[in-house]
Amino acid sequence: MQAALDLARSGQGHVEPNPMVGCVIVRDGCVVGQGFHGQFGGPHAEVAAIRSLANPADARGATAYVTLEPCCHFGKTPPCADALIEVGVGRVVVAMEDPFDQVSGGGIAKLRAAGIEVTVGTRCAEAGDLNAPFLKRVQSGLPWVIAKWAMTIDGRIATVGGESQWITGASSRAEVHRLRGRVDAIVVGMGTVVADDPTLTARPAGPRAADRVVYCRNRLPSLDSNLVRTAKDHRLILVVGPEIDRQSLDQVRAAGAEIMPVDAVDLAAMARAGIQAIGESGATNVMLEGGSELLGSFFLASLIDECHVYVGAKAFGGAAAPGPVGGIGVAEIAQATNFKLRAMDQFDDDVRLIYRRFAD
Amino acid sequence: MQAALDLARSGQGHVEPNPMVGCVIVRDGCVVGQGFHGQFGGPHAEVAAIRSLANPADARGATAYVTLEPCCHFGKTPPCADALIEVGVGRVVVAMEDPFDQVSGGGIAKLRAAGIEVTVGTRCAEAGDLNAPFLKRVQSGLPWVIAKWAMTIDGRIATVGGESQWITGASSRAEVHRLRGRVDAIVVGMGTVVADDPTLTARPAGPRAADRVVYCRNRLPSLDSNLVRTAKDHRLILVVGPEIDRQSLDQVRAAGAEIMPVDAVDLAAMARAGIQAIGESGATNVMLEGGSELLGSFFLASLIDECHVYVGAKAFGGAAAPGPVGGIGVAEIAQATNFKLRAMDQFDDDVRLIYRRFAD
Repeated sequence: MQAALDLARSGQGHVEPNPMVGCVIVRDGCVVGQGFHGQFGGPHAEVAAIRSLANPADARGATAYVTLEPCCHFGKTPPCADALIEVGVGRVVVAMEDPFDQVSGGGIAKLRAAGIEVTVGTRCAEAGDLNAPFLKRVQSGLPWVIAKWAMTIDGRIATVGGESQWITGASSRAEVHRLRGRVDAIVVGMGTVVADDPTLTARPAGPRAADRVVYCRNRLPSLDSNLVRTAKDHRLILVVGPEIDRQSLDQVRAAGAEIMPVDAVDLAAMARAGIQAIGESGATNVMLEGGSELLGSFFLASLIDECHVYVGAKAFGGAAAPGPVGGIGVAEIAQATNFKLRAMDQFDDDVRLIYRRFAD
Repeated sequence: MQAALDLARSGQGHVEPNPMVGCVIVRDGCVVGQGFHGQFGGPHAEVAAIRSLANPADARGATAYVTLEPCCHFGKTPPCADALIEVGVGRVVVAMEDPFDQVSGGGIAKLRAAGIEVTVGTRCAEAGDLNAPFLKRVQSGLPWVIAKWAMTIDGRIATVGGESQWITGASSRAEVHRLRGRVDAIVVGMGTVVADDPTLTARPAGPRAADRVVYCRNRLPSLDSNLVRTAKDHRLILVVGPEIDRQSLDQVRAAGAEIMPVDAVDLAAMARAGIQAIGESGATNVMLEGGSELLGSFFLASLIDECHVYVGAKAFGGAAAPGPVGGIGVAEIAQATNFKLRAMDQFDDDVRLIYRRFAD
């Protein structure tokens, strides 16, 4: 199952909104076939594993390890449960049930009805971790929200003079571009647009081209900003509150930006309404790139699932230098958002810490 | 030499203000003896290695690997160069010269004069790293300054409401106590005394009992503070500026505190004058435990050699929540203090990052 989980991860960035799935077929203690879901719309892991067999007869009586319940419906491809039955596997070990409405136990029932022994729950926690964004989307309709920031060893995102480029080195920034290249949307606030005039594209391009989303509570990006200038090449969505005037909206719309209006004026409510709309548009993974006011409102609304914290090996100091998460913050530690540490990685002298929200 | 360096580290916290030294004696490709300087005033590494020989004749014609030049003077113990000559080693490999005035090449000269082949400079950088605090003290008279702080993943040391206990977990805090137990002095500012009423002892006690030092620019710890109440059991030194009135000083002195007066009123100058005095009192390693104003003044004065940054797995947010390094800070990134990452360690969900100042 560990091999199947490792295989599954190869599809990251390519298969969403589908889940990542891996499959390993074992016979007499030997791996005879393996595969993963490698491309949205392409063959599922089970079919890829079956196709990898030197001889289809090798699957007869073998055990298939699958990281997610085989599907039982006709989607972009025929049902995987049928494919496993057809080649005659004797046993299927499934890490976890697929909560997707059209599967949800149906694949397992179909296998059992065909006389195949099915074991469910092997390495279930790891499988759930792997597809946490998929599971969240299926269960709540909301995308998985990854907040990314770079700060100094003393927790600053800029000097008191407002300088912020660069806190981290080239290899950290290349890693951020890899993350940009596998998410569905990159979100920033207007403060970041004004301060950095970012383009928010992945360079080099990754497996998917993220929508670029700007939260605009009371102002819009200027027509000559990098975001608006490139709006016809890379989708640009402006989440706009009711305070923005219609005439300015018409101008940015004419320049190629799409408008996603939300009723909320309160920052946390606006964060929530925007992310809901982004989820409805089909996004599985959303990345927040700041600034601190936007991150503050997302923390306030409990919308952040994962943090990628880059720590650059320098200190700025200064009581007035900004930190990564602004807003009003929590008054008591008991109200703080708690995380589990997932990974520590080094990029030259920079460190990347990955956290997931602690589910109590 | 790697084995000798590893051995040397075993003396950390026990040998200061002496350097940590390790020695391995190799004959015909086999380690026949090894030792390290284990206790201030105790036998040096070379002597410990010689004593570890199964038979003194094993050293005849052997090679001794030493992480620091063997001494040539009578200090607390007789000269190590003489001991090596006496047992008849054929060759000595030395990682680096000892810059201490009474050695400084003299040990190497003595060995060579006795006809022993001496190689100098093997793993010199690692040896220098290991004894950076000793080398700094010998070369500048100033102690090695380690700043330690704990912050959230968003770089805060307290909530906007002022709560700070606890940001990190029990195993991180135990590690901080281990560091406290091997340094010569623990330094805080008055803000920390007022906010946390700390005792600043190592629990459990380590190899050395650090002096507790408080920077008092315009106020003193109260007589019923934990620091003053324990002043007769654990040395308490107050670095006081000229603004403090004499009568209050007499009170804390009567309670057992020692007064270290400095003329400076400017924060950075006061930081420097205090650390100079702490160095003159014989300290090799000094640990700064905050608060942010004290750290800000030490950064401003370029006095920090090493940082131990603990990152607790929670986020507080809040534009007004304090960060670890206050003061005026730097306006431009070009003026920031740069560091090299030395270590990343995990304690439950906390991370400890160790940095040393980048010497350009």
